[in-house]
Amino acid sequence: MKNVAIGIDIGGTNTLFGLVDSQGNCVATKSLVTTDYETPEKLIKAIFQEVQLMLVSDTTLFPVGIGIGAPNGNYYNGTIEYAPNLKWKGVINLIQLFRKYFDLPIYVTNDANAAAIGEMTYGVAKGIKNFIVVTLGTGLGSGIVCNGELIYGHDGFAGELGHTIVEENGRECACGRKGCLETYVSATGIVRTAHILLAEYSKASMLRRFSDDKITAKSIAEAAQKGDALALEIFDYTAKKLGISLANIVAITSPELIVLFGGLANSGESITDPTKKYMEENLLLIFKHKVKIIPSSLKGGVAAIMGASSLVWNELKKEQLEKTSLN
Amino acid sequence: MKNVAIGIDIGGTNTLFGLVDSQGNCVATKSLVTTDYETPEKLIKAIFQEVQLMLVSDTTLFPVGIGIGAPNGNYYNGTIEYAPNLKWKGVINLIQLFRKYFDLPIYVTNDANAAAIGEMTYGVAKGIKNFIVVTLGTGLGSGIVCNGELIYGHDGFAGELGHTIVEENGRECACGRKGCLETYVSATGIVRTAHILLAEYSKASMLRRFSDDKITAKSIAEAAQKGDALALEIFDYTAKKLGISLANIVAITSPELIVLFGGLANSGESITDPTKKYMEENLLLIFKHKVKIIPSSLKGGVAAIMGASSLVWNELKKEQLEKTSLN
Repeated sequence: MKNVAIGIDIGGTNTLFGLVDSQGNCVATKSLVTTDYETPEKLIKAIFQEVQLMLVSDTTLFPVGIGIGAPNGNYYNGTIEYAPNLKWKGVINLIQLFRKYFDLPIYVTNDANAAAIGEMTYGVAKGIKNFIVVTLGTGLGSGIVCNGELIYGHDGFAGELGHTIVEENGRECACGRKGCLETYVSATGIVRTAHILLAEYSKASMLRRFSDDKITAKSIAEAAQKGDALALEIFDYTAKKLGISLANIVAITSPELIVLFGGLANSGESITDPTKKYMEENLLLIFKHKVKIIPSSLKGGVAAIMGASSLVWNELKKEQLEKTSLN
Repeated sequence: MKNVAIGIDIGGTNTLFGLVDSQGNCVATKSLVTTDYETPEKLIKAIFQEVQLMLVSDTTLFPVGIGIGAPNGNYYNGTIEYAPNLKWKGVINLIQLFRKYFDLPIYVTNDANAAAIGEMTYGVAKGIKNFIVVTLGTGLGSGIVCNGELIYGHDGFAGELGHTIVEENGRECACGRKGCLETYVSATGIVRTAHILLAEYSKASMLRRFSDDKITAKSIAEAAQKGDALALEIFDYTAKKLGISLANIVAITSPELIVLFGGLANSGESITDPTKKYMEENLLLIFKHKVKIIPSSLKGGVAAIMGASSLVWNELKKEQLEKTSLN
């Protein structure tokens, strides 16, 4: 028998899930298109059927729990609450819905928190008590670990670094406010910067060959890797915004390590090097040259599944510790 | 016999200390002028002599530990490290120095962290697991509590909210950088704002009667309480900067409560009301109308002593919990 956690990452476009052992080996994975399902119930039923198949195909696997990463996933309530990028509206009680199909402990959080627990359980943050994971996808999320514990805050919604205001009256954000970090630093933010800088500067750039809607974070990253000066400037602008924000959050929680995770983070040194430079320039003296910035080690398509599955091992560990302290 | 903690608050100008029981009753206090002592050793010797007198005068008191709040006080190292507003330079090993005189457990942290533990032990944050204390004195400090524990961070220096940059290329800060929150929001910050607004506006104000060096946080607060329009505007500007910063830190740690502590916080509603307004205006939707802002309940001259003393009770509680978990 081999204990495995079921890791599920519910995204606006795709839902990824799989079985992961306590060492971080992903033994089975599957992807469904989230938007194909009119209701969360229908998606969950489809997940159940697929997981059944996975478990039947290898009867040595024994599922011990379900970890779910979801947009606006709330750890305390086991819910998705008003997620702007899902078509299912309002509050969705995931635990209640999953209970219809699975008789297992179920833990919910958002994708950035899941990534942080993933790094702590299997990744580059193993054994590190104070660190931050910044997820650079369509938006910008963060999972903050202090004293070895993820910070959920009073209501389960801590870690919204992407919605700290970095520019008074800045860019309009999907959240309804202006100047949020994620309007500058994210796959969508960097594209907005590209459009502005292409308009402001007249210098040549391979990005000018693309029609407006073909300029993506990926095409900007590719241009930067080829040494395109404007693309490098776009990365520099993005990294500056991120670097200053990281300098500020370092002053607040004083982490040892910052892990960059997700799409934009895969641009590697194009983003980590200038971010590190701007962070150092803006750090308070006592924090200088102390904080590492590295890309996630949970690479490839299964990182989100691993993050979600790690919730299970983390909760089992916590329960174990509580039991020990009661005896 | 009555157990008491020795609470010591080392400040740039005065050092306050006293004996405090576990309920927060201050049974003896004393103040010394920090700048009268050429070396930390000499100050500590004087504290020892005064504490001896306190203990001799009431032999039922039994000291169980020493808690020290000091500028740039480091919890992990038991040191003061490069405090800009003390004349003693470099790293001062407080624990080593105190050990010459006291055979007691000694705990060190900065004044804002001490205030946070004070609020948790005796004050308005009793029983609250996620809250922030913002100290508004000459500078701006913060103590952040998550999951019921103070956040010290990797190196013991977490909680430097006053040194988050809120304005790129903003006001020059004593830390050598520009645009730190405390250059706007603190006793010195509000005076800078007063000078700027007095120069920018031509409207009448009782503040114009003062010579430049007589404009203090106190005189501005008094003018505001009398309804002086410009003084109110100065408070409004200050509260806006603080409110936006608080909205940002709420997004990061999601506290239930924010406690304002120290000189400027004593201006009461002049500062709490507009701060709350600007914080609410700038909060992400999921955090709106959830976070209370209230002034500290540790009032009067002994608040800093109480904060420092609370370190002792907090550490004893932690040790007790650890012992229980080992048995």
